[in-house]
Amino acid sequence: MSQDSTPTPDAPSSVVVLAGGTGGAKLASGFAGLPDVRLSVIANTGDDVTVYGARVCPDPDLIIFHLAGRINDRGWGLDGDTFHAMAQLGELDADNWFQLGDKDLAIGIDRAERLAAGQTLTQATAALAESFGVSAAVLPMCDEPVATHVVVGGVPRPFQEFMIVDQARGPVEAVVLEGITAAKPTAEVLSAIASADVIVIGPSNPAISIGPILAVPGMSQAIQTASAPVVAVSPLVHGSAIKGPTEEFLRAAGVEQSAAGIAQHYAALINGLVADQDVTATPTLLTDLLMDGEEGRRRLAAETLAFAMTLEVNGQ
Amino acid sequence: MSQDSTPTPDAPSSVVVLAGGTGGAKLASGFAGLPDVRLSVIANTGDDVTVYGARVCPDPDLIIFHLAGRINDRGWGLDGDTFHAMAQLGELDADNWFQLGDKDLAIGIDRAERLAAGQTLTQATAALAESFGVSAAVLPMCDEPVATHVVVGGVPRPFQEFMIVDQARGPVEAVVLEGITAAKPTAEVLSAIASADVIVIGPSNPAISIGPILAVPGMSQAIQTASAPVVAVSPLVHGSAIKGPTEEFLRAAGVEQSAAGIAQHYAALINGLVADQDVTATPTLLTDLLMDGEEGRRRLAAETLAFAMTLEVNGQ
Repeated sequence: MSQDSTPTPDAPSSVVVLAGGTGGAKLASGFAGLPDVRLSVIANTGDDVTVYGARVCPDPDLIIFHLAGRINDRGWGLDGDTFHAMAQLGELDADNWFQLGDKDLAIGIDRAERLAAGQTLTQATAALAESFGVSAAVLPMCDEPVATHVVVGGVPRPFQEFMIVDQARGPVEAVVLEGITAAKPTAEVLSAIASADVIVIGPSNPAISIGPILAVPGMSQAIQTASAPVVAVSPLVHGSAIKGPTEEFLRAAGVEQSAAGIAQHYAALINGLVADQDVTATPTLLTDLLMDGEEGRRRLAAETLAFAMTLEVNGQ
Repeated sequence: MSQDSTPTPDAPSSVVVLAGGTGGAKLASGFAGLPDVRLSVIANTGDDVTVYGARVCPDPDLIIFHLAGRINDRGWGLDGDTFHAMAQLGELDADNWFQLGDKDLAIGIDRAERLAAGQTLTQATAALAESFGVSAAVLPMCDEPVATHVVVGGVPRPFQEFMIVDQARGPVEAVVLEGITAAKPTAEVLSAIASADVIVIGPSNPAISIGPILAVPGMSQAIQTASAPVVAVSPLVHGSAIKGPTEEFLRAAGVEQSAAGIAQHYAALINGLVADQDVTATPTLLTDLLMDGEEGRRRLAAETLAFAMTLEVNGQ
């Protein structure tokens, strides 16, 4: 956003957050907790998988569960969910490597039925968010199926199988996004980006969570041409990833494991970085990146929003 | 079986039971509880339905749950099953008229996956029975899909929708068996019939449970040409059906609601009838048809077996 159109303090700010799993979802819930923020979350769908006849969208669902305050303490799945269907599959000697709670299974079954009935993934996701009382717009990055594959030993493995069956054993050689060339940002995504006051790249894995979103043809250009400032929140806390295989994927992508490396990776898109290590190449807000509890998530969201409002957008 | 080949008391008797829902399943479990009985159950599959992406076979599953001693007290579904997936579908405003427990849902999902992978329904059913420790052969009447429809007001309704959504409201005008002309008894069914020492038509609904089994092209002929005596156990207790809409279906099929009516309905097939009202047209074992508890089921099975052994098979 250019400096002369800064919204008055009373007007709601339209915030768009790009998010994959836990980090992005937590920050999104921080924004959702701020007064006068209209939140849209653009979610990675490269991890989506069809299993047990259900269509499972791990990142969009995780975001919705976080926004609804219903995430399980273990960090995935619904609070209080049971695993009776999975146990029964086990008794039948059926493959049940992808553990889904009973309610989670129903969510995936419902999604499969909505898609089979002709709804878009965007519509099915909106129905899920609404049923959880989530007022933020949770937007799949595209309606076309995209499947992230991780190449290890020359063999591309579907992302969830790499993470669960292979226990994320590398070394990772490459990431392949099956279906990405046929994908396009949805009208809802393009509209949210175009009308945003602030665009935030969440602290999710740059390679396998944010990477697929930015790889949707037309997505990066839409963000570059938006009038809003773009800020990335570093996924590295004191130089390390808090959770998941981020470090291995940064290495594979040739991204230096530091705030400077993150800034360089997103250089073509961002006007500023939120990190806990100083960076010379781009305006940086130095702050604590840990999001402890609801208060911690709101704090980081508020600081990120205030910082973004101070930034010059290139060429404006 | 002809009188001169009566097995010695020590040799196991091969008993085949034709069964639909509760009555047939209870009698089958009575036979399974007898020493020296090798049991095969030919199960109605006309009630099978695909729902939530799962392939659900109500009668074969009910039979397996009864044989495993795992039937729920309510008379359907697994003992101790939960309904969390169905509750979640309800929260999504999704159609959840067909209530399936979480384990039951997994059983149907597993079956759908086995069928999609090329297994026959017979193979998938055998895998389920084995996982429940059931040693009896539970045999679908055919591997081809058959769908029982109930015609009310000129409109054919799938059986489960008639029973659950329409609450079995008649008057029933007719029963239509979609797919029946393309069906055939499986090799396992034909082999069980051919090698049976006794064939029992269980006390299930003659129109919608036993009817579809006998309507599979070639099934009635296989039973008629078998060397074993054929006995029907009347589904009417003191002239009334214990459970379900049997009476309405008997009326629609023009079957008199009495032991004599049942005997007449099965006249072309049976050598004897087990009933609690005397019948002049066919040899009849008069006994108590209520199967209270395990002991009651074994009693009726043992009486039926002993009675059958005394019968002359037509033409032999």
